[in-house]
Amino acid sequence: MAAELSAAVLGSTGYSGAELVRLLARHPKLEKPLLLRRNSEGSETSGMALAGINGNGNGHLPTAAFAWEALPEHGIELLFLATPHGASRELVPEAMARGLRVIDLSGAWRLKQAEHRAVYGFKDADGNMAAKLDASAVYGLPELNAESIAGAALVANPGCYATSVILGLAPLVAADLIDREKGIISDSKSGVSGAGKEPTARTHFVSVADNFSAYSVFGHRHTGEILEQLRLDGRQLIFTPHLLPIPRGILSTIYVHLKREATAEEIRDCFGDFYAGKRWVRIYPAETLPEVQFSVHTNYCDLGFVLARDGRRLVIVSCLDNLLKGAAGQAVQNMNLMYGWDEAEALA
Amino acid sequence: MAAELSAAVLGSTGYSGAELVRLLARHPKLEKPLLLRRNSEGSETSGMALAGINGNGNGHLPTAAFAWEALPEHGIELLFLATPHGASRELVPEAMARGLRVIDLSGAWRLKQAEHRAVYGFKDADGNMAAKLDASAVYGLPELNAESIAGAALVANPGCYATSVILGLAPLVAADLIDREKGIISDSKSGVSGAGKEPTARTHFVSVADNFSAYSVFGHRHTGEILEQLRLDGRQLIFTPHLLPIPRGILSTIYVHLKREATAEEIRDCFGDFYAGKRWVRIYPAETLPEVQFSVHTNYCDLGFVLARDGRRLVIVSCLDNLLKGAAGQAVQNMNLMYGWDEAEALA
Amino acid sequence: MAAELSAAVLGSTGYSGAELVRLLARHPKLEKPLLLRRNSEGSETSGMALAGINGNGNGHLPTAAFAWEALPEHGIELLFLATPHGASRELVPEAMARGLRVIDLSGAWRLKQAEHRAVYGFKDADGNMAAKLDASAVYGLPELNAESIAGAALVANPGCYATSVILGLAPLVAADLIDREKGIISDSKSGVSGAGKEPTARTHFVSVADNFSAYSVFGHRHTGEILEQLRLDGRQLIFTPHLLPIPRGILSTIYVHLKREATAEEIRDCFGDFYAGKRWVRIYPAETLPEVQFSVHTNYCDLGFVLARDGRRLVIVSCLDNLLKGAAGQAVQNMNLMYGWDEAEALA
Amino acid sequence: MAAELSAAVLGSTGYSGAELVRLLARHPKLEKPLLLRRNSEGSETSGMALAGINGNGNGHLPTAAFAWEALPEHGIELLFLATPHGASRELVPEAMARGLRVIDLSGAWRLKQAEHRAVYGFKDADGNMAAKLDASAVYGLPELNAESIAGAALVANPGCYATSVILGLAPLVAADLIDREKGIISDSKSGVSGAGKEPTARTHFVSVADNFSAYSVFGHRHTGEILEQLRLDGRQLIFTPHLLPIPRGILSTIYVHLKREATAEEIRDCFGDFYAGKRWVRIYPAETLPEVQFSVHTNYCDLGFVLARDGRRLVIVSCLDNLLKGAAGQAVQNMNLMYGWDEAEALA
Repeated sequence: MAAELSAAVLGSTGYSGAELVRLLARHPKLEKPLLLRRNSEGSETSGMALAGINGNGNGHLPTAAFAWEALPEHGIELLFLATPHGASRELVPEAMARGLRVIDLSGAWRLKQAEHRAVYGFKDADGNMAAKLDASAVYGLPELNAESIAGAALVANPGCYATSVILGLAPLVAADLIDREKGIISDSKSGVSGAGKEPTARTHFVSVADNFSAYSVFGHRHTGEILEQLRLDGRQLIFTPHLLPIPRGILSTIYVHLKREATAEEIRDCFGDFYAGKRWVRIYPAETLPEVQFSVHTNYCDLGFVLARDGRRLVIVSCLDNLLKGAAGQAVQNMNLMYGWDEAEALA
Repeated sequence: MAAELSAAVLGSTGYSGAELVRLLARHPKLEKPLLLRRNSEGSETSGMALAGINGNGNGHLPTAAFAWEALPEHGIELLFLATPHGASRELVPEAMARGLRVIDLSGAWRLKQAEHRAVYGFKDADGNMAAKLDASAVYGLPELNAESIAGAALVANPGCYATSVILGLAPLVAADLIDREKGIISDSKSGVSGAGKEPTARTHFVSVADNFSAYSVFGHRHTGEILEQLRLDGRQLIFTPHLLPIPRGILSTIYVHLKREATAEEIRDCFGDFYAGKRWVRIYPAETLPEVQFSVHTNYCDLGFVLARDGRRLVIVSCLDNLLKGAAGQAVQNMNLMYGWDEAEALA
Repeated sequence: MAAELSAAVLGSTGYSGAELVRLLARHPKLEKPLLLRRNSEGSETSGMALAGINGNGNGHLPTAAFAWEALPEHGIELLFLATPHGASRELVPEAMARGLRVIDLSGAWRLKQAEHRAVYGFKDADGNMAAKLDASAVYGLPELNAESIAGAALVANPGCYATSVILGLAPLVAADLIDREKGIISDSKSGVSGAGKEPTARTHFVSVADNFSAYSVFGHRHTGEILEQLRLDGRQLIFTPHLLPIPRGILSTIYVHLKREATAEEIRDCFGDFYAGKRWVRIYPAETLPEVQFSVHTNYCDLGFVLARDGRRLVIVSCLDNLLKGAAGQAVQNMNLMYGWDEAEALA
Repeated sequence: MAAELSAAVLGSTGYSGAELVRLLARHPKLEKPLLLRRNSEGSETSGMALAGINGNGNGHLPTAAFAWEALPEHGIELLFLATPHGASRELVPEAMARGLRVIDLSGAWRLKQAEHRAVYGFKDADGNMAAKLDASAVYGLPELNAESIAGAALVANPGCYATSVILGLAPLVAADLIDREKGIISDSKSGVSGAGKEPTARTHFVSVADNFSAYSVFGHRHTGEILEQLRLDGRQLIFTPHLLPIPRGILSTIYVHLKREATAEEIRDCFGDFYAGKRWVRIYPAETLPEVQFSVHTNYCDLGFVLARDGRRLVIVSCLDNLLKGAAGQAVQNMNLMYGWDEAEALA
């Protein structure tokens, strides 16, 4: 198979970036991805870097210092940004101006409403350009927005928590089954890689192991994504993140009241119909719940539910790997859609 | 200090039983506890058993085959049962008839309402006697029932999950602050020792490590205890247990809607007043949340909360060690109350 | 690409078997593997089994009750056995008689010397046949025996510990650099999946987490494999296994005295030359040591070393994933050699 | 019981310091310990600090800014230093001059030989004073040096690894049973709290969990302590530390060749006689090995062994809690000896 595309990655030293590079390196439609380094970045010290040590590994990937001019020389058409929010906010306008397509893994371009963007405190050099891009950026959740993604110049890859919550609720929202006035609660739990690679008191092994904690109660940045994609207002959702003593994986336990009495079969059908033909969502039979382990190291979002006997109260459990379906895997899925390839390429 | 009491433990090989023995062995008011063995029990193989190996350890504790007649010979006045529910249900009537006081760590005598007891499926040899004991048994949650515990013949030591949820909600219920019609949710997470020592596919290290899962959704046995102690009806509470990949510790994230707008200070006072003088409950300042690690290996139940800006939605976080405040520690606390000793004896 | 081979797997419910099926299912030269079930086997309950739940997963794999006659109907030429040692010992003679090729993941056919086989206590129905097969079975360590594997009817896939130790020592043995009289020590540590899926007191989460222990000191079954492949006698090696509180991965710390003073560069060359062109062994630069995490979820065996300043004492660190290079990955690598395919097929 | 002593702790925010404070706070012979803070230290943020939050905890301990003059005001006679090596090296001469007794938990004063001290690179303001203190400091391993400790002004509390290795070998060295020319190997494994509280790439949860690694091969600082206490020379010992994915606990697997054939009973007696009457060492029966879990959260050092059938090769397993017998617990044990109290006070 001849490669059809050259892509570059800026920010390959973080957890999502490294996972992205691993996936891109084995993608049959792609040239070996070009790893771009900025001065501020430390050198790569992970096990991945050692992969090619004696020539028996996956082979060294091409690297280059980041410079806009260098990209055409390498034939780069698609740029992945696994950079901090602020950096992505700065870089994307220039990338667009230069005719590149971009998949941005940060929170920089996910939010349409200024009040939701406020939590990031972006300072845009050119407010007009930023506003235009905020409007044109496509929220890269393939199960909801496949068509827009296919034609997008700028794809804002969703947050990991947000992906798990939105996919767990979207079918019920679409079917208008939820009694929003009683409030939706997503009690979500994530592995530590979701907190990033920076060593902090909070990510120290001794702080995390044998522990479990809630954080950012009523104030997590992913809340805006969930509200916007599901068209909820802020009073209708409580989203509570927790830190699990595991390296990777998210489980969201989602509580909703239904507008009317339903049967488990109806709920099952609601999910089944909504996700029919969707390669990377798996619906569990009623009363059978997904666990973190079942989706980790895969690109699946797994969904299961239990309906109370009263037929009115529903608990949904949504699981995914925060580095795959919650980040790098979803980015590759988006690329596959953007270039008309099989949605599972490099992911199965 | 001269010992004032002789107590025996039936069922010291499980996690709670072993922890109980460890506490009793260091209690200054007690003779060395007598460990009773039934034929059906396996021999003790834990590290604790090795403690006295070369005479330098804590010393071997006295053991005896279980027989009712033997108890007076050893001067036993208080019997701890760390036995399965069914066994406790059988043993307690006889113990009462023989004039012993009993602290039962199982679920056998915790529930007043027949519909709640139904989940255990007890078959009582003497229905009248069982009914009398169901009525007279005291639910051993010292922060709620200290006076009744002091005079009780039979103390039903609470479930670990139930303790965390009841203590997190009791002050708000007492102050009638909760809008019950909107539903209370306790999303609770427990370490694996809560699932017992039996090796099963579910407790295998490879099934638990790097994993997280919900279970018994809308159907956990501790639900009845919570409902009864807080005087809720079943439609007003969803209690969802989850399995954490840690050996011990519980964290419950509890969601309530308030009847009226409140300030964080009011909530803090509500908790502070309710637990004033209660040695084993710690209230965290507003916005500061307890974590599992802070209470594990202690007898504390730690409580914290965050109030939404609307002053109407409240998230409470309740943490404790399922083997201590959730089982053996609370049993010792109950004993301390029953005999008029300092509530912290052997626990600090 | 058209499939070139039909293979079946007996014993796909254990950890190695499940991993093997995952690899075979994505192998481009293979038909979907046929999963054979014996009556005694429980039904598959792992997350893998759920993979195809709503038709969006990897698809259900074909399954059949195990019967020799059924294999030709399915066109099976190659049989993988991920069965207990005793079962493999019984099944292989019949498989050979029926003209199948076999890759056996158990310890049944790895050992040439009767004294080493004695630890398994095999009772062979036909001693002559067993003796012939003991002699003709090829020890399936591709880095040592690639040629014999290519032509083998019966490949005995090596033990996980044995693979890590043999690959760590083979270059030094070949170069005759080791002072065997001073004794070789391999202090080896394995994740829990190496202990199998059977729930036992030993594999209970609470027994393993926050723990670490040595076991089978001077008596582990893999010792014979190491001795035979490296042509050592029993007094020259101490092999001590330990149980790590992780799901998968092995690290062996190996201690040798050299016959003569050497430089780190010589040692590096010794390893580099020996493994030149070997796809699945990576040599780390002197003073840089592999860690379990770098090889887990890959088929690599990673090797590093530190030489004492005296140039005579050498510490080698060998890491691999016990379920991949230590079991299922190596089995696929062996299949690739047996059928003349790229050694990395389905493994990269 | 009236308190008999006032002690202060400098450096209570690290893991060992915090554990020390916990033990001292419950010691019946001591006033509440005075916590000294230096400007450079961060504020305490651990769960312990929260212990007294609503007045129901252990109570706030007295704290003071560190100043030599302030110590007599508080009646301080004994100073615990849980400070970095360099700080202890600076502080101790002044403390001695002021007539305080000191238990130093760092490596500053443990080593008698200049070549061993060289790894720390101390720069002593007054070389004469330092030399005098190096000579007079007592290595605080109670099982070896109880008498000197009782009368010491300066106790150098041993390293955690060193304690585990020395206690595992001392009886055999005393009995002159080891063939030193064949080399002694201690393959040691420690939980992460041994690496300190500083957040680094190495202590990040994601780097440690599901991982295991060797480090400081042929170069760990504790090597000198082991050599000096056992009177070995550097060529006779290889000590290899490894990082375990657990919060606390050390296990050392120690390999020795015996000078002559011995029986397991002889070895058992050798250990039993040497440690007769030693409260905090437990000897396991032959073939029964200690595990990390059995000694964690206790002050025990647990010792077990397996002898090869040839009666010449011996594997010793030594376990302890690095924060207790390996640091804070041993410091308290030393204090108990220094003041003539029961060696188990505050530790049982």
